[in-house]
Amino acid sequence: MHTDTYGPAGDSPGGSVRVRLDVAYDGTGFSGWAIQPDQRTVAGAVLEALTRLFGSPTGLTVAGRTDAGVHATGQVCHVDVPAEAWQRLADTATRRLAGLLPGDIRVTRVGQAPPGFDARFSALSRRYAYRVADTAWGAPPLRRHDTLAWPWALDIERMNQAGQGLLGEHDFAAYCRRKEHGTTIRDLQRFDWHRDAAGIVIASVVADAFCQSMVRSLVGALLPVGDGRRPVEWPASLLSRRQRASEVTVVPPHGLTLTGVHYPTDPTRYAVRAGQTRNVRG
Amino acid sequence: MHTDTYGPAGDSPGGSVRVRLDVAYDGTGFSGWAIQPDQRTVAGAVLEALTRLFGSPTGLTVAGRTDAGVHATGQVCHVDVPAEAWQRLADTATRRLAGLLPGDIRVTRVGQAPPGFDARFSALSRRYAYRVADTAWGAPPLRRHDTLAWPWALDIERMNQAGQGLLGEHDFAAYCRRKEHGTTIRDLQRFDWHRDAAGIVIASVVADAFCQSMVRSLVGALLPVGDGRRPVEWPASLLSRRQRASEVTVVPPHGLTLTGVHYPTDPTRYAVRAGQTRNVRG
Repeated sequence: MHTDTYGPAGDSPGGSVRVRLDVAYDGTGFSGWAIQPDQRTVAGAVLEALTRLFGSPTGLTVAGRTDAGVHATGQVCHVDVPAEAWQRLADTATRRLAGLLPGDIRVTRVGQAPPGFDARFSALSRRYAYRVADTAWGAPPLRRHDTLAWPWALDIERMNQAGQGLLGEHDFAAYCRRKEHGTTIRDLQRFDWHRDAAGIVIASVVADAFCQSMVRSLVGALLPVGDGRRPVEWPASLLSRRQRASEVTVVPPHGLTLTGVHYPTDPTRYAVRAGQTRNVRG
Repeated sequence: MHTDTYGPAGDSPGGSVRVRLDVAYDGTGFSGWAIQPDQRTVAGAVLEALTRLFGSPTGLTVAGRTDAGVHATGQVCHVDVPAEAWQRLADTATRRLAGLLPGDIRVTRVGQAPPGFDARFSALSRRYAYRVADTAWGAPPLRRHDTLAWPWALDIERMNQAGQGLLGEHDFAAYCRRKEHGTTIRDLQRFDWHRDAAGIVIASVVADAFCQSMVRSLVGALLPVGDGRRPVEWPASLLSRRQRASEVTVVPPHGLTLTGVHYPTDPTRYAVRAGQTRNVRG
């Protein structure tokens, strides 16, 4: 049911152009990225707008498939569109898509993708942010849609120490929803916390890829460290588990935002990276 | 119908305590601050929560009466509550109010007001922000509730020049909704623009007080300066008008947020200021 790609792969070299789209959305009103029957989904709305604009887009593929209620400011996807339509519409595509999409999705950039580019498989890493308000009064009203209210004061220093203990390549089975196939080994490259000017506590989390609900499980393990109920060493101690740790609360989706996808700076490496990733995760 | 104060004034010295509340709200779902029959209003919701908590609050008074759809991060109001209830609940009032209020209103601070404090009349100035996205693709989805989408690129430098020309004490009749009684003379202390890290263009506007729709008219006059359709001198030239300038578009309320109210730093001046203000505007 869940898939990263929609429609047949583009099959007419010369007849189609691969387009990269940078996408932002408020996940509140969506059942996640992936198209599902009778559900309002981000991919469904994007595909509808692309179809109205370009006629017959094929192979819509996303870098980070977000769950229901999760937001994005830096999502990336690609799609193959008829070359004729692209040439005619390239200059005005950004503005036209703004008119075709609902206000809770914006395509912030549209452009022809470099040769070999694959939004999913060329990606080196995904970056997420999780926002937490730790005041007695709760989340700021204007940011309540993307900020978790946590009723206990958080100690950033303790959470940063705990986050350090999780960095590197590990089997994150304790932090992943169990799946029949596929590895739960991931390379966690960054997991740190800061308090912004408005007092909001924000996690920055980067990995080569994430398994389902992994960021929300990682955050769920660190918040009780931050408020003093769990020791700093506890989150790392769970890495020895071979299955999901039931003591870890998966925090709600609305605090989570996909903020960026990192690709090789040298475009000639897009296809190389895509080949490597397909071998590992295919 | 519109009033700043609800309920009888506190009449039992010793029997009641004046409490200052700092309030934040998402104005999207409210018909403004002021209580109106059959409308969901901020004052109505705050008064309901205060009544449930303190029994019989009187004289709820606000610093900046916001219109329908306008937000606040730094609104201030006061209310008189029974001294007995206050003594019993002071320590837990912030957390209790969070439980009693809807998520689109938060009381961020509650405390006994210094002698002579009046949220409206002791205030020296009100500060507003207006947020504008000037990209081809529109407003960021997660901030679309408090950001105006303006489809033309804005020149901050031109808008700052135009804003400078409006500073000082003037008759802002051109920028005010006409009223039978009351002056339209105001002291505009700050009106400048910057672009934040996310690329959003933000106006900061401070005056001793504002007449109705004044900030939205000022912003509406400066945006066509920023996109090049009006000369830099145009907004100041309207100050010679003795009535509302119909060429000025009043921009939508959802970009506007009351961000703060400034009071004398010396609390002994609260009552003095209140007396002065009542003479001018009473």
